[in-house]
Amino acid sequence: MPIPEPNLYPPFNIVRLSHVEYGVTDLAASRAFYVDTLGLQVTDEDDTTIYLRAMEERGHHCIALVQSDTAYVGGLGFKVFDEQELDKAAAWFDAQGLGVDWVERPFIGRAFRTRDPFGIPLEFYCRMDRLPPIHQQYKLYRGVKPLRIDHFNMFSSDVDASVAFYNSIGFRVTEYTEDAETGKCWAAWMHRKGGVHDVAFTNGTGPRLHHTAFWVPTPLNIIDLLDLMATTGYVGNIERGPGRHGISNAFFLYVRDPDGHRIEIYCSDYMTVDPDLEPIKWDLKDPQRQTLWGAPAPRSWFEEGSVFEGAALTASVLKAQPIVAP
Amino acid sequence: MPIPEPNLYPPFNIVRLSHVEYGVTDLAASRAFYVDTLGLQVTDEDDTTIYLRAMEERGHHCIALVQSDTAYVGGLGFKVFDEQELDKAAAWFDAQGLGVDWVERPFIGRAFRTRDPFGIPLEFYCRMDRLPPIHQQYKLYRGVKPLRIDHFNMFSSDVDASVAFYNSIGFRVTEYTEDAETGKCWAAWMHRKGGVHDVAFTNGTGPRLHHTAFWVPTPLNIIDLLDLMATTGYVGNIERGPGRHGISNAFFLYVRDPDGHRIEIYCSDYMTVDPDLEPIKWDLKDPQRQTLWGAPAPRSWFEEGSVFEGAALTASVLKAQPIVAP
Amino acid sequence: MPIPEPNLYPPFNIVRLSHVEYGVTDLAASRAFYVDTLGLQVTDEDDTTIYLRAMEERGHHCIALVQSDTAYVGGLGFKVFDEQELDKAAAWFDAQGLGVDWVERPFIGRAFRTRDPFGIPLEFYCRMDRLPPIHQQYKLYRGVKPLRIDHFNMFSSDVDASVAFYNSIGFRVTEYTEDAETGKCWAAWMHRKGGVHDVAFTNGTGPRLHHTAFWVPTPLNIIDLLDLMATTGYVGNIERGPGRHGISNAFFLYVRDPDGHRIEIYCSDYMTVDPDLEPIKWDLKDPQRQTLWGAPAPRSWFEEGSVFEGAALTASVLKAQPIVAP
Amino acid sequence: MPIPEPNLYPPFNIVRLSHVEYGVTDLAASRAFYVDTLGLQVTDEDDTTIYLRAMEERGHHCIALVQSDTAYVGGLGFKVFDEQELDKAAAWFDAQGLGVDWVERPFIGRAFRTRDPFGIPLEFYCRMDRLPPIHQQYKLYRGVKPLRIDHFNMFSSDVDASVAFYNSIGFRVTEYTEDAETGKCWAAWMHRKGGVHDVAFTNGTGPRLHHTAFWVPTPLNIIDLLDLMATTGYVGNIERGPGRHGISNAFFLYVRDPDGHRIEIYCSDYMTVDPDLEPIKWDLKDPQRQTLWGAPAPRSWFEEGSVFEGAALTASVLKAQPIVAP
Ligand SMILES: [Ca+2]
Ligand SMILES: [Fe+2]
Ligand SMILES: [Fe+2]
Ligand SMILES: [Fe+2]
Ligand SMILES: [Fe+2]
Repeated sequence: MPIPEPNLYPPFNIVRLSHVEYGVTDLAASRAFYVDTLGLQVTDEDDTTIYLRAMEERGHHCIALVQSDTAYVGGLGFKVFDEQELDKAAAWFDAQGLGVDWVERPFIGRAFRTRDPFGIPLEFYCRMDRLPPIHQQYKLYRGVKPLRIDHFNMFSSDVDASVAFYNSIGFRVTEYTEDAETGKCWAAWMHRKGGVHDVAFTNGTGPRLHHTAFWVPTPLNIIDLLDLMATTGYVGNIERGPGRHGISNAFFLYVRDPDGHRIEIYCSDYMTVDPDLEPIKWDLKDPQRQTLWGAPAPRSWFEEGSVFEGAALTASVLKAQPIVAP
Repeated sequence: MPIPEPNLYPPFNIVRLSHVEYGVTDLAASRAFYVDTLGLQVTDEDDTTIYLRAMEERGHHCIALVQSDTAYVGGLGFKVFDEQELDKAAAWFDAQGLGVDWVERPFIGRAFRTRDPFGIPLEFYCRMDRLPPIHQQYKLYRGVKPLRIDHFNMFSSDVDASVAFYNSIGFRVTEYTEDAETGKCWAAWMHRKGGVHDVAFTNGTGPRLHHTAFWVPTPLNIIDLLDLMATTGYVGNIERGPGRHGISNAFFLYVRDPDGHRIEIYCSDYMTVDPDLEPIKWDLKDPQRQTLWGAPAPRSWFEEGSVFEGAALTASVLKAQPIVAP
Repeated sequence: MPIPEPNLYPPFNIVRLSHVEYGVTDLAASRAFYVDTLGLQVTDEDDTTIYLRAMEERGHHCIALVQSDTAYVGGLGFKVFDEQELDKAAAWFDAQGLGVDWVERPFIGRAFRTRDPFGIPLEFYCRMDRLPPIHQQYKLYRGVKPLRIDHFNMFSSDVDASVAFYNSIGFRVTEYTEDAETGKCWAAWMHRKGGVHDVAFTNGTGPRLHHTAFWVPTPLNIIDLLDLMATTGYVGNIERGPGRHGISNAFFLYVRDPDGHRIEIYCSDYMTVDPDLEPIKWDLKDPQRQTLWGAPAPRSWFEEGSVFEGAALTASVLKAQPIVAP
Repeated sequence: MPIPEPNLYPPFNIVRLSHVEYGVTDLAASRAFYVDTLGLQVTDEDDTTIYLRAMEERGHHCIALVQSDTAYVGGLGFKVFDEQELDKAAAWFDAQGLGVDWVERPFIGRAFRTRDPFGIPLEFYCRMDRLPPIHQQYKLYRGVKPLRIDHFNMFSSDVDASVAFYNSIGFRVTEYTEDAETGKCWAAWMHRKGGVHDVAFTNGTGPRLHHTAFWVPTPLNIIDLLDLMATTGYVGNIERGPGRHGISNAFFLYVRDPDGHRIEIYCSDYMTVDPDLEPIKWDLKDPQRQTLWGAPAPRSWFEEGSVFEGAALTASVLKAQPIVAP
């Protein structure tokens, strides 16, 4: 199935991905990971919840960590352009029969919760509390020097269907992987904010969150994080990398938080604001699509992910096999 | 005069800055500078004109070098969203009485030429020839590894007026410098594409082009360029830097081409896609606004610029004095 | 067997490792690899031999590539302090019964060839033709920007015996790996020039050359090489890395030349000039000794090596098993 | 006066520069600078003295900060090869009539104090307390990530005489600046440990300490320090740089501590262990000798320095004028 034409006049204007809620089973352990190791900044915390932002973000938070009996992902947040677009979004989801629950969220103005057709919980808002800039308070930089949340990557049981849905609400495909045998899409990267992606979908039992990614200044910050994790008890949390992606051309590292939620550290992809940007197609059997330098990803990377709150899992339609490390 | 509220629903949709034409007096010397030294890629050339693109660009060119008796800047190119937006742009400029000349430009579809109210020649188009990606052909990377054109910076004789005009066509202010005594704007940075700026204006005899900037991967590429220029006969072309800007937080270097056209090498500013992004205000007397590390810019940097073809010069209204290197 | 006390007053003064001769089966293919890809500089060449130096070296060459029917390593070169020390070295090897052949070598003054007790061909000299500095001719820098030859690493069938021999001629152990079960040495790193090593020995069928290493400025140069090799037909020549060694703390990459000779790209180890520097001991079962970040080396890395001209192979004494990638 | 031939068989074996004592007028302010900002590690401290080491050093300290009424430099420490060499050194200084005082120094074994013929206080020892390695405790890295003390640079009123003296005790010239008019030496760089220098001398009122330098991993660490200092109240302590030296080819930054003692941050010079290394000559009028990229040093850099305890000052013999920033 070919990649659809981009929907350049979508029903409402999503600015960018914004934030995610992670259910975690040991809040102190998660704080040590996200704050002391990765270097995110605490913007609010109490006994059950910690809010975090990255160094160049002025919105109140990009992650909410919530103490929980079991690990989960509570919802993926997206910022829309203004109140008017928020209402248009709500009307659209309602018209699709996907449900619209207006919710109260700390530090956020009007917001509604819905789900995509595959069960992924989504939240839309236009106004989050704004905080003073800290990007030039260099004494606060720690860990990997995370600058901003970059993207969500999700397992989808039907990537073609996921692409069709997110395309309909204005996400544009920048790169994708096709299974040559079936012509179906194995994975796709789709953006709103002008980078390679705000969201990506990978074939697998879904919906699950594969990872959340943070943008950092340079590959050297990723090397610093590896050195730090390797010597502070986190060597087992390093899952894959460092390396250069074929797809997106970004330099990457994948690590796992104490509950197994996967975090990607990511830098140096390219600008995609041109509406006539041609998507780049990769073959599933191309060993360089995952890692330009040829190293395959480990099995865990293809199979493990975080469950979304209240989302039933479906095995993937496509049974093709990517290249897995032996 | 305060910074105006952003115009979030402008009369037409400009995607980004796109390209510039430089009149140069020795095309071979300019080729040595832009191609062999900076590392831009030739996409077309003949005896009188060379077209160049940076490594991640898929549009045909971001610079056209044109052999000329005298150095000049021929026009600043901007890409609009689609044909419909192009027509809306033409209608708008026509309605303003600024003139609309539909022009033939090599490698570009429908395009019109106009001027801003201060005389800067502008060109708008939506379609430029698209070229295959080369960002992963690493054997082609040379010099400073330029990835993309990033912004134009212009001398304006009335920065408040320039800001008002560009604000009206949808450019949003991200940072600005105020002269505390008069309350007037000394300089402003305005974006369309989600970085700190596509265009900036600095107080001075105008309109003149202060510089065109290119985005590079990391500060180390800028150090590489300095080492290269310093040992290939270009040491006198290094004007200012390297350093960290206070404004924009970018790492920078300014160099001059063989005709004196100023090129900035630039990396690591921040994302600005939020429509509610608060502009950051700097005081003209703050020595860290120019260079976070405190080093003032040389006098040439404040005084010299490239003239636009056919634009009459006006001395600046504001006579305040920035901090100049002794 | 414990590491011996350093011999601080050795029988003669070796300054550093110096050069190696590689027999290669396709000189043009090797030139493409060493010159066009790695970025070494040709200092002399004819139809059968190419001499290369790295960017900060002033000696004539660090590698001689010799066209041959089969791949081999012809001899490891070491520079001694002066003529007097050269004579003392010759007398010492002669007294050990290891043989001393005074040989004619292009671009080198008086030189003799001998073998260590395990069969490794060694060459000693004090004067090699000196060339003008090129380390500030930045236009010559290419590929991984190799600055200097750093070390030789060899398979030894009896690492304890190799350490004892090289210790007797003044190489000092900086780090070593012990097999906890037998108390024998699995691997050792030994220096003359003030870095972590000039020579290292790893348990295995020996003597064979495991790799020759080149020092580069920063980890980013190694990333540049990976990007280049991955997109110029050398993706299959990338064997292991990039990563941080536990031992030596260096950032590394291992690549294979067209004949399979292994080259390490290496940077950022530490200074070892103190005569009372305490060797650092690692356990063979420590997964972080190979790669601080935990990734094991592939089987090829433990098993494959280059044969020395005229050296009979012996299986290793120690049968312990390092951690190999699955 | 030509550079003397290196003394390859000096009267005693100095391994490297080792440590320096700084008299400081506000110990807490100095601690904030050296520990919290530069990132040196405290190895011992009480109310009057703080001992510091850099990240890869295993000797107890490279700097002792001593609370004092006035700023001063107490003595430059050098490590000799062993006890035997220490006695040879003492005998030699005694024979020169320069005085030998055996002194008690905390954390150091047998040690004597003397002065060079120009009054610089020197201390020699062979054994300092050894500490466990911390170079792989990455959570301790802060500030500029200082790895090791690299060199001392001193004002000398007669550089030719300083060179002659240090040459006689085995320091070898790697690079030097000649005043073309007089043929006299304006500055010289001399090493023991295999880098460009352990000591350097610059023409000026002397003897005074111009600076102590620390080696850091890469230029990016220097940029990090600049960002940190610029935003933590130290912008006025940034004196010169960042830049690439012509001489030494190192990347550098000069900062001033709270008492004005000058610290250089330095990386990426080259290996100099070859006894036949040819010194590189620079002309005093060459603007690229100071900074390869052409930027001149400020006047303070040529004129200001730290006084040595008990050393009378002499105006320099040579009155030539280097290139000073306007
Ligand atoms: Ca003592
Ligand atoms: Fe990702
Ligand atoms: Fe700029
Ligand atoms: Fe090695
Ligand atoms: Fe220095």
